[in-house]
Amino acid sequence: MSLAALLKPRSIAIVGASDNKARIGGVPVDLLHRAGFEKIYPVNPKNETVQGLAAYKDIESVPEVVDLVILALSADATLPYLERCHAQGIPAALVYASGYAETNEPDGIAKQAELVAFAERTGMRIAGPNCMGNANFTDGIFTAFGQSFQPGEPAGGTALLTQSGNMCATVFRMARRAGVTFSHVINTGNEASIDFSDYLDFLAEDPATDSAVCYIEELRDGPKFLAAAARFRAAGKLLAVYKVGVSEKGAAAAQSHTAALAGDTAAYDAAFAKAGVARAGEFSQLADLAYLHTIGGKIAGARCAILSVSGAAGAILSDALSLAGGDVPTLPQAAQDGLDALIPGHSMVSNPVDLTGNLVNSSDFLYAAMKLAVEANEIDVVLLYLPGYFLTQSFEQVERLAAETDKALIVIDTFAQADQARLAKAGIGYFDDFDRAARAVSAYGAWKAQDTQAVEPSVSGASWGAFPEDQNALSETEAKEALARFGVPVVHDALVHSSDEARAAAAKIGYPLVAKLVSPDVAHKTEHGLIRLSLADADAVVEAFESMMAKARSMSGVRIEGVTLEPMLAGGVEILAGVTRDPVFGWMLTVGLGGVWTELMKDVRHRLLPVDAAGAEAMLRGLKGFKLLDGYRGAPKADVAGAARAIAALGDAVLAGGDRIREVEVNPLLVMPEGRGAIAVDALVLLNEPVREKAEEAA
Amino acid sequence: MSLAALLKPRSIAIVGASDNKARIGGVPVDLLHRAGFEKIYPVNPKNETVQGLAAYKDIESVPEVVDLVILALSADATLPYLERCHAQGIPAALVYASGYAETNEPDGIAKQAELVAFAERTGMRIAGPNCMGNANFTDGIFTAFGQSFQPGEPAGGTALLTQSGNMCATVFRMARRAGVTFSHVINTGNEASIDFSDYLDFLAEDPATDSAVCYIEELRDGPKFLAAAARFRAAGKLLAVYKVGVSEKGAAAAQSHTAALAGDTAAYDAAFAKAGVARAGEFSQLADLAYLHTIGGKIAGARCAILSVSGAAGAILSDALSLAGGDVPTLPQAAQDGLDALIPGHSMVSNPVDLTGNLVNSSDFLYAAMKLAVEANEIDVVLLYLPGYFLTQSFEQVERLAAETDKALIVIDTFAQADQARLAKAGIGYFDDFDRAARAVSAYGAWKAQDTQAVEPSVSGASWGAFPEDQNALSETEAKEALARFGVPVVHDALVHSSDEARAAAAKIGYPLVAKLVSPDVAHKTEHGLIRLSLADADAVVEAFESMMAKARSMSGVRIEGVTLEPMLAGGVEILAGVTRDPVFGWMLTVGLGGVWTELMKDVRHRLLPVDAAGAEAMLRGLKGFKLLDGYRGAPKADVAGAARAIAALGDAVLAGGDRIREVEVNPLLVMPEGRGAIAVDALVLLNEPVREKAEEAA
Repeated sequence: MSLAALLKPRSIAIVGASDNKARIGGVPVDLLHRAGFEKIYPVNPKNETVQGLAAYKDIESVPEVVDLVILALSADATLPYLERCHAQGIPAALVYASGYAETNEPDGIAKQAELVAFAERTGMRIAGPNCMGNANFTDGIFTAFGQSFQPGEPAGGTALLTQSGNMCATVFRMARRAGVTFSHVINTGNEASIDFSDYLDFLAEDPATDSAVCYIEELRDGPKFLAAAARFRAAGKLLAVYKVGVSEKGAAAAQSHTAALAGDTAAYDAAFAKAGVARAGEFSQLADLAYLHTIGGKIAGARCAILSVSGAAGAILSDALSLAGGDVPTLPQAAQDGLDALIPGHSMVSNPVDLTGNLVNSSDFLYAAMKLAVEANEIDVVLLYLPGYFLTQSFEQVERLAAETDKALIVIDTFAQADQARLAKAGIGYFDDFDRAARAVSAYGAWKAQDTQAVEPSVSGASWGAFPEDQNALSETEAKEALARFGVPVVHDALVHSSDEARAAAAKIGYPLVAKLVSPDVAHKTEHGLIRLSLADADAVVEAFESMMAKARSMSGVRIEGVTLEPMLAGGVEILAGVTRDPVFGWMLTVGLGGVWTELMKDVRHRLLPVDAAGAEAMLRGLKGFKLLDGYRGAPKADVAGAARAIAALGDAVLAGGDRIREVEVNPLLVMPEGRGAIAVDALVLLNEPVREKAEEAA
Repeated sequence: MSLAALLKPRSIAIVGASDNKARIGGVPVDLLHRAGFEKIYPVNPKNETVQGLAAYKDIESVPEVVDLVILALSADATLPYLERCHAQGIPAALVYASGYAETNEPDGIAKQAELVAFAERTGMRIAGPNCMGNANFTDGIFTAFGQSFQPGEPAGGTALLTQSGNMCATVFRMARRAGVTFSHVINTGNEASIDFSDYLDFLAEDPATDSAVCYIEELRDGPKFLAAAARFRAAGKLLAVYKVGVSEKGAAAAQSHTAALAGDTAAYDAAFAKAGVARAGEFSQLADLAYLHTIGGKIAGARCAILSVSGAAGAILSDALSLAGGDVPTLPQAAQDGLDALIPGHSMVSNPVDLTGNLVNSSDFLYAAMKLAVEANEIDVVLLYLPGYFLTQSFEQVERLAAETDKALIVIDTFAQADQARLAKAGIGYFDDFDRAARAVSAYGAWKAQDTQAVEPSVSGASWGAFPEDQNALSETEAKEALARFGVPVVHDALVHSSDEARAAAAKIGYPLVAKLVSPDVAHKTEHGLIRLSLADADAVVEAFESMMAKARSMSGVRIEGVTLEPMLAGGVEILAGVTRDPVFGWMLTVGLGGVWTELMKDVRHRLLPVDAAGAEAMLRGLKGFKLLDGYRGAPKADVAGAARAIAALGDAVLAGGDRIREVEVNPLLVMPEGRGAIAVDALVLLNEPVREKAEEAA
């Protein structure tokens, strides 16, 4: 059921309405009244009128079934009143009251559970509790008890959706200063019944909204968020997100604030990458991304040409873009030649372009220079450093080119003197700070340029078979056999107890091989001759088996479990691949180089499943240490494609495994030289307890 | 000779003075006149007056020997006129003209060389060329041909020193918007004769200046900069620097702009760390650091308490501080208990502190909470998130505490509504953006808290001896012997040619040892038995020597150079230490973990020499991979102190080596388990050609 009754109501009752325009029950009456909203029904048992409007003693007296009831009541009074509203057939409610789960106390948590149960039973859409209310600028509907959003603001295409009322007001003001105008401003409160992503779904379909900027502390339903984000992408709408809690302290603060566990940073990173959301690297960038989207149709990526009246400014912007992940491509030779002919003296023309101060001496110079830049295929955006009077002097040229080109022009004026209204009218971007501009353009351009291809899980038809009921892990052999069925190449090893078994197993494994005595009682097997390498044929295997057994039998107090045979692999590079389950987003694949690389350098990449071979290869190529796989120091190149296939198969296996799987890790996955694939030397499969057992325990 | 005649002149002649106040020769006359400067002497051969002032037809007609002459002439006319000014005894000149080395063309480079030769011959202090001129707000003296710096601005303690005229104006405006006031604004032009650091020296001693903020493209004289920076530290003055050119593109742009090679990023990083300058991480931070220094006496470090009326804002600020390198320490239990008693309900009190919106209901609540925070020893700075009316409501409380505490209070108001003048009057800091505040406070606090201990080089009295005249490197044996004399432990190896030599050398080296046949003709020595490990006594060494020689003699076409003996070292961790010479800053020490760690992960640390053992140990402990030395995965801890002593000795050796040394590297330096030191297994000493030879070649 849509949130239209909540966010676009045609009639509103305010229960707890106050005559005092500054009080919590008075503000929404005042705002709605001033906005010219017609069907306002203040409910107040004591007053005949509220702020000059006819008041009703209770919800039952209101002469129509309203779309939305706002409850400005205490937490204790709220649920009983919701029952009465439901009895009237009212489809949506907004609950201001706090004192629920955000208190992190049993009483509040119980109250919230009752509210959820009520919503589920009745189907009523209930926003909050602990919610400040919203503003719909498109239709002039104001349901907040704060004064931050006032009637009369111009309406626009940006929606603001936050998990904090205060931050809602903050982003709103920052973005308004940049000239951004809004469709909806929504803060979600405790999200007891209406989830963050429910609002996103509404905004994805709202014709007045062409972008949403979001402040997120914690998402409760990862898949729902991913689905909503996909709707934004399909509609060509910007979804920009700032996620708090990337540091331990920030996470702790967010946790207490929302009564929610802080999400795992890596999982959020992976989810945002998969969902194709634009990630605000700092809080104020939410406003900048919303702002850039207003000229966003012209920005195809983050490849910038820099035209500057100051060589220093060009250098500073280049540095800032590089640090922010943007790009400053060298201009094509033709463009450079054109610029060289245009600019007096010998100046930088490769990019950044130093226009020099001569700019002001010609009425066409800047236009011609910009034209050369926008016509280069390598360029998505032209950044113009034109401080103070340099812009004033050449404004008409910039406007003229802006009208002719499909690419974005963005002016930077560190003197902060530019006529913003005139720039906005011409669809030209504006910043007064180098680094803020560079970061915002890089983030927005990266969002626009990203690959949006969705990955479908590959279904092999293989099966894990029955999981053992009483174990929390598979044995190494069981784990490798299961993964092998899904197409993960594994080392076949064998535990043998006789010369005949050794001969038969060796034939299956292939040569050369390694034989190891298996005993819990011998520490230094190499020193005792209980590991034998490079066994090249059956006779060597049998000889090794017999001599190791004899040696072990000659040692006192040594229990002998047998001898393992495994192929002797040389020349490979060890990597690891593992899949864990994030409580919000589900299965997350991690790959990294083996051992200390992963542990000390944190040189790992994460993606949410499903991941296909192309995705797995991109993860490997994203590792800082990828060169180790790429023919490092004269070594043969490793079979990266083979490793990627093995990793993708691992992911598919986990997806096929269902709820019993807790975690799967292959470590090491030995990546052999090109053409020889990758092979899982060891595998770990951890299991959850069967659900049936949990039910029994609860009984 | 001081720059007083240039920067604090009592009388000024302007050659090329114009009646037109907008022209290059007219602007300084107008500015000086409006500033009330008394002794202005316009020089213009055609006019009797300039802008209402008596004009002189040439410098010889000016009735006194002025302190400073400003030359608003073409490049060609400048040097002849300088000769005439010098003949008059004028001590200082400011050259506006461009067309010198910045053109990067032979003619301009030659002109600049003539100017330098003139300055050296005459001792005249010549600013520029290609210089926009300066502003001295303290004394009301304006020598610029631009309009950016006007008489009437309030004077203050911040000096602005830049290698770009345009950036000078930009930082000035940014900082003025934050309320910063200035003593001097200086841009250095081409620095043909007066170097960047000459200006720093002047500012270090200028009583009106208590901080300098600098935009740097390239320093020409590293040691002079380090010395000037030391004067700033000794005087307790802030020296804040933004260095452009950290990316390849930025460096290329800077290079073209100043006709100077871009400095090596690592060397600048090392130099700035050594000099104790505050590094602006982004351009606009120059203004923020200048601003923070105005309340800087109260900021002792970057350990922040966050008091916020919004839990979300507290979390955002925590994240931002952590990312910026600041700290959000947990408050002591007593402070937490006090806050818990103060704040209604259950709120975050550990830090960040969530004050909740109840703040406005008490006239003492915020004061009491801030007092608990500032009294904690763990805290240097209290950040207050008080947007809009929250500050208005509690301004008096903040002022009251600010008057009582020695610690800094900084208000953040994302609504940008704070009364900045009232805050400034009370010495309270102010920002309107979370991340900008966090980055600036972290950078400023880090500068204040840094260790400033200078390191004196240790003089061992050892000597390199005579360097070979005709070689560009020492042999490995020569290199190790030389380093050993300076106290670097080295592997003693020996090339032996007989059993007797082998026996004697082995006794010197110690056991166990490794013997290797030396021949240019054998590739796989292990396979041929020509490397023998773990030789435990003299007899084993002799046996190995004889059998390897016999084996080698039995192979056809194999030249035999002898057998090397070296100690067999096991259990150590390989690191590398090297010293290179940066063209600007001189000797720079680099340490890192060996092999791929250094190459792929760039996990290295740099410092300028001299570095003592404590400094070397800090470098090792700063490596991401330091855990590999610290008992990783159950290995014994490595002898980090021993490694640090060896590295410090390496640095001392290089300093003692003089100009013939080009580069020295020890790779690997094997760090043994604790108590067993570190030992140079291999050493490389590259040499420069002797200076004498160069002179001969030139002759």
